[in-house]
Amino acid sequence: MAASSEKYDIVIVGAGPVGLLLSVCLARWGYKIKNIDNREVPTLTGRADGIQPRSLHLLRNMDLKRPIMAHQPAKVYEVAFWDPQSGGKGIHRTGNWAACPKFIDARYPFTTLLHQGLIERVFIDDLHKNGADVQRPWTITGFNNDGQDKTYPIEVNLKHMRTDEKEIVRAKYLFSGEGARSFIRDQLGVKIRHKDPISHVWGVMDGVVRTDFPDVKMKCTIHSDHGSIMIIPRENNMVRLYIQIASSTDKDFDPRKQATPEDVQASAKKILQPYYIEWDMVEWYSVYPIGQGIAENYTIDHRVFLGGDCCHTHSPKAGQGMNTAFHDALNLAWKIHHVEAGFANRSILQSYEAERKHIAEELLDFDAKYAALFSQRVPSAGEVGAASEDNIDGAANEFVKVFKSSQEFTSGYGIFYGPNEFNWSSDHSAQSHLFNPKGNTVRVGRIMPPANVTRVVDANEVQLEQEIPLNGSFRIFLFAGSPSKTQRAVADFATNLQKKKSFYSTFAREDIASVSYHERHNPHSYFFSICTTFASPRDRIDISKMLPPILARYSDHVYADDVWDPKVPDAKAAAHAKLGLDADKGGVVVVRPDGHVGCVVTLVAGSGTVDALNDYFGAFVSKPIGNGKPQAQL
Amino acid sequence: MAASSEKYDIVIVGAGPVGLLLSVCLARWGYKIKNIDNREVPTLTGRADGIQPRSLHLLRNMDLKRPIMAHQPAKVYEVAFWDPQSGGKGIHRTGNWAACPKFIDARYPFTTLLHQGLIERVFIDDLHKNGADVQRPWTITGFNNDGQDKTYPIEVNLKHMRTDEKEIVRAKYLFSGEGARSFIRDQLGVKIRHKDPISHVWGVMDGVVRTDFPDVKMKCTIHSDHGSIMIIPRENNMVRLYIQIASSTDKDFDPRKQATPEDVQASAKKILQPYYIEWDMVEWYSVYPIGQGIAENYTIDHRVFLGGDCCHTHSPKAGQGMNTAFHDALNLAWKIHHVEAGFANRSILQSYEAERKHIAEELLDFDAKYAALFSQRVPSAGEVGAASEDNIDGAANEFVKVFKSSQEFTSGYGIFYGPNEFNWSSDHSAQSHLFNPKGNTVRVGRIMPPANVTRVVDANEVQLEQEIPLNGSFRIFLFAGSPSKTQRAVADFATNLQKKKSFYSTFAREDIASVSYHERHNPHSYFFSICTTFASPRDRIDISKMLPPILARYSDHVYADDVWDPKVPDAKAAAHAKLGLDADKGGVVVVRPDGHVGCVVTLVAGSGTVDALNDYFGAFVSKPIGNGKPQAQL
Repeated sequence: MAASSEKYDIVIVGAGPVGLLLSVCLARWGYKIKNIDNREVPTLTGRADGIQPRSLHLLRNMDLKRPIMAHQPAKVYEVAFWDPQSGGKGIHRTGNWAACPKFIDARYPFTTLLHQGLIERVFIDDLHKNGADVQRPWTITGFNNDGQDKTYPIEVNLKHMRTDEKEIVRAKYLFSGEGARSFIRDQLGVKIRHKDPISHVWGVMDGVVRTDFPDVKMKCTIHSDHGSIMIIPRENNMVRLYIQIASSTDKDFDPRKQATPEDVQASAKKILQPYYIEWDMVEWYSVYPIGQGIAENYTIDHRVFLGGDCCHTHSPKAGQGMNTAFHDALNLAWKIHHVEAGFANRSILQSYEAERKHIAEELLDFDAKYAALFSQRVPSAGEVGAASEDNIDGAANEFVKVFKSSQEFTSGYGIFYGPNEFNWSSDHSAQSHLFNPKGNTVRVGRIMPPANVTRVVDANEVQLEQEIPLNGSFRIFLFAGSPSKTQRAVADFATNLQKKKSFYSTFAREDIASVSYHERHNPHSYFFSICTTFASPRDRIDISKMLPPILARYSDHVYADDVWDPKVPDAKAAAHAKLGLDADKGGVVVVRPDGHVGCVVTLVAGSGTVDALNDYFGAFVSKPIGNGKPQAQL
Repeated sequence: MAASSEKYDIVIVGAGPVGLLLSVCLARWGYKIKNIDNREVPTLTGRADGIQPRSLHLLRNMDLKRPIMAHQPAKVYEVAFWDPQSGGKGIHRTGNWAACPKFIDARYPFTTLLHQGLIERVFIDDLHKNGADVQRPWTITGFNNDGQDKTYPIEVNLKHMRTDEKEIVRAKYLFSGEGARSFIRDQLGVKIRHKDPISHVWGVMDGVVRTDFPDVKMKCTIHSDHGSIMIIPRENNMVRLYIQIASSTDKDFDPRKQATPEDVQASAKKILQPYYIEWDMVEWYSVYPIGQGIAENYTIDHRVFLGGDCCHTHSPKAGQGMNTAFHDALNLAWKIHHVEAGFANRSILQSYEAERKHIAEELLDFDAKYAALFSQRVPSAGEVGAASEDNIDGAANEFVKVFKSSQEFTSGYGIFYGPNEFNWSSDHSAQSHLFNPKGNTVRVGRIMPPANVTRVVDANEVQLEQEIPLNGSFRIFLFAGSPSKTQRAVADFATNLQKKKSFYSTFAREDIASVSYHERHNPHSYFFSICTTFASPRDRIDISKMLPPILARYSDHVYADDVWDPKVPDAKAAAHAKLGLDADKGGVVVVRPDGHVGCVVTLVAGSGTVDALNDYFGAFVSKPIGNGKPQAQL
């Protein structure tokens, strides 16, 4: 151990989507990061380009949607299916449906297509605002969790790619966002398991084309007598073509089979008949073999973590790689933060692999199922219609069911985390009968549904689920129902929050006496933000009269549930209704820092509501709470 | 005349909102501009800050809304009224209503509050993209429309403010965006007429405050026993206070009356009782006398023009100064462009003063009426309710009527231009009976109402009125009704557009044979863009089969009128319905480059529709059109 080694909270290897999102979060939250990348510059061409609806929603929560959209990306609202006509007359359209159908309650019901390099630069610009940057071209040559420094147990060896300059640093954490070929993963001896034995060789070509094919600005899946192709529109009149060049199911399969750009263009021309296609320019072209694979572990020691393509590879067809990477990074970021900030037990880091590996398994299952679904037959118009209906449970047949769950999964809104310390279930150590109030339709482990409300202080119509930025805090949504009926319950909620051993008081800010008057999100604690929403018109809400000081302090986070919503057209309080909460009685929804719901609790007079939350948080926080008993029983 | 003088299309003096918007438009459209300003840097503090709903809509059309919103401006959705309580108990809220009520069909029903300097920088950044910039600190010392150069008739003398360096240039046009104290206006001998003899001394203070006054994040008009104040929220927790310090109606009126920041703060504290207010910091403070005034002319020779504050001054209360300036600049920009590009007769420049001076007169009338309205009495809750209803014609009494028209006017959506060559009326030289089809509710001279439609090529839901950017072209909206019923009319429309002497063919691009495949807006002519909207679901529209090539060439501008709109909930084709156009038969709406409707024409089989448009455009274009007769009769 070099005594003089520079020390970092985390060394992040790789500045693709997963590494960058992790860097951005931790840099914003005050951590000292070192993010290296072995490339001289951000991605120039090619690679991932699809931001799914839920990911865009997340980027909005990070205040990064605007710079993304400033690049005027393509937006895919519909997917068109084309198939061969009989008699060699070329292809014709056999169906099309919404990329993110109405039954998914998405803020942004479309996929956003933008070159990965532009997305990376948005993250890098954000790093600069926090005094951080990516160091290039550097690579990792070794690491060792030698524990010689208790606080910074890992030694990391780095090397400049051109000058061979070496650097040894120490870190609390090491993260591999290196992509499919990961030095760190290999060093850890983590194996890749192949779920589906079939592998494919894909060709991908980005370029500017001229064509009379009418759907060139939509996502298309095209089968023809001459092969299959997928079309993805992009910014700046660019079009991406995916073409399957070989499959391990082929008799003469060669995973190293190559194809020139001219081969691919010639194939595309045949496949698209009777339409023509010509290229003005080709920006990027690549042929690569790909198989399904999943890392057996995402970490060994809970100090060195893997994420992104390093953990899961699959076909690019569903556009899930970058999106899964974003959520890997997000999931790990707030957990590291909660441990390092002294809020949560170190054991929560175990849930990173548990939660994210499960999603990767689902992704691979989905990948296989989805492929099978469409290789069998073309769905009928009626099936597509049924599959696009509002009600996800109204699934008429197997096809519609699989299709719907696929659509929900790929949008990102189908992702849910199973029961654990964060995601309440009847197996959780917190056992109050107030959990999961009757009638509520909130799905624990999933994203809280979007809802528009009116902010009381300035009468702005806002997106409630976006009101707390991605700041690492748990979001306590107090749905306060009808003011006249919940007056007592709200007062008691506040009183019990303030009790010495409550989850809220226990993790009060040390500087609570000198917090800025203008602090909006974290006036009392860095780990909680509270939003109060009344089922009442805005002009009937008087914050100082209707809310106890601890809640009134969040004056920017008091809302009126008085905005009409087409999803619940007859509801008087749409946000309450969307969550299945009684418009009189309300309820409390706890949302994890990443936007997934942790638990839902009945709002009652007395201490029960806060007691239940004490029990809930008691399952993973670092200090005893709730009357001194970490897991008090009611 | 210095033979070596540099030559410009236009010299623009002043880089405030009016000068910058003019510069941005003309620089984008390829003109050589020289924009000078006598300040060293853009506005640092103070000045205008309110972007009204229609102005934001315009900035969106210029693709400048995103950088404006990136500054996270305050948004005012409601205005609160506070008045004294009896018994010296201080103020209480007596009413509040929407800043842009629902009866106004606005895309953005709020006022956007942002420091003028930040707005200026957005324009300046855009200038840079077009290779232009503002030269500082330079001033104008003289000018002369000496005609010694026929193309560049004006000599302009400029001086650097620090070095006294002098420059003489020649220009086609000279524009004064100098503000209330205009050297150019004075040199021209243009007088300011004072409509309302009353003048006021205002104090204005921008700062960050602490207060328990609950409406500090809304626009407030506060009357108290200790005086009156207006509150305007701003970005970054800033608050602007306007306080009337003296009025010429006071017995001892002194237009030079001063007040220190401490005086104003002391007054504010008294006025706001029983609430407290304290300042963390004061960013800007100013006291200035202001009276209503309007320039008697906006130009003398149609070469030297005035605009913005140089032409109209009034109270800052309604937040109209910068917004009026934007529209002055916009109005002049496209008219200069159409003359200089050889499209329109030079005589159209006369409509600049006619159209814009009329708006300034209305503004001053409104200013006086609005002030009187609220000095008389506080409106009742019922009146406010009635005034916010959807239907502008359902006005119950005089108050509601005046209030509604005031709201519409200040939003920018009430602005309309009276009959002239651009704004068709029964007095227009074009006399076809096809103008102004029965049932249509489009109001010529006003903004085309917003409508969402689905773009056919990519299934994106888009804002139809925004689909043509501010590119200087007339926008021809072909509402094509039901495809099966308009097939013939659409075909004939296309055929007649292509006739040699049609308005469309006459102004074809010279490079029409080599226009880029990817050109979206101006494939045939720089002066026209065509959007076709069918009253049909998107998936029934086949562009290549349903549209003749001339219209199909605008493949990015073919739309399906299949998006539900809450304003016309029962309509099957909402965009058609909002315009009062028959969903079977459609109609043609011609929109000026600035978004105001020029004329509406019935869509019929035969040559009638295009004949009518030939007559309409024949009234002002520079070449004979329509069978060789500039104003053919049907």
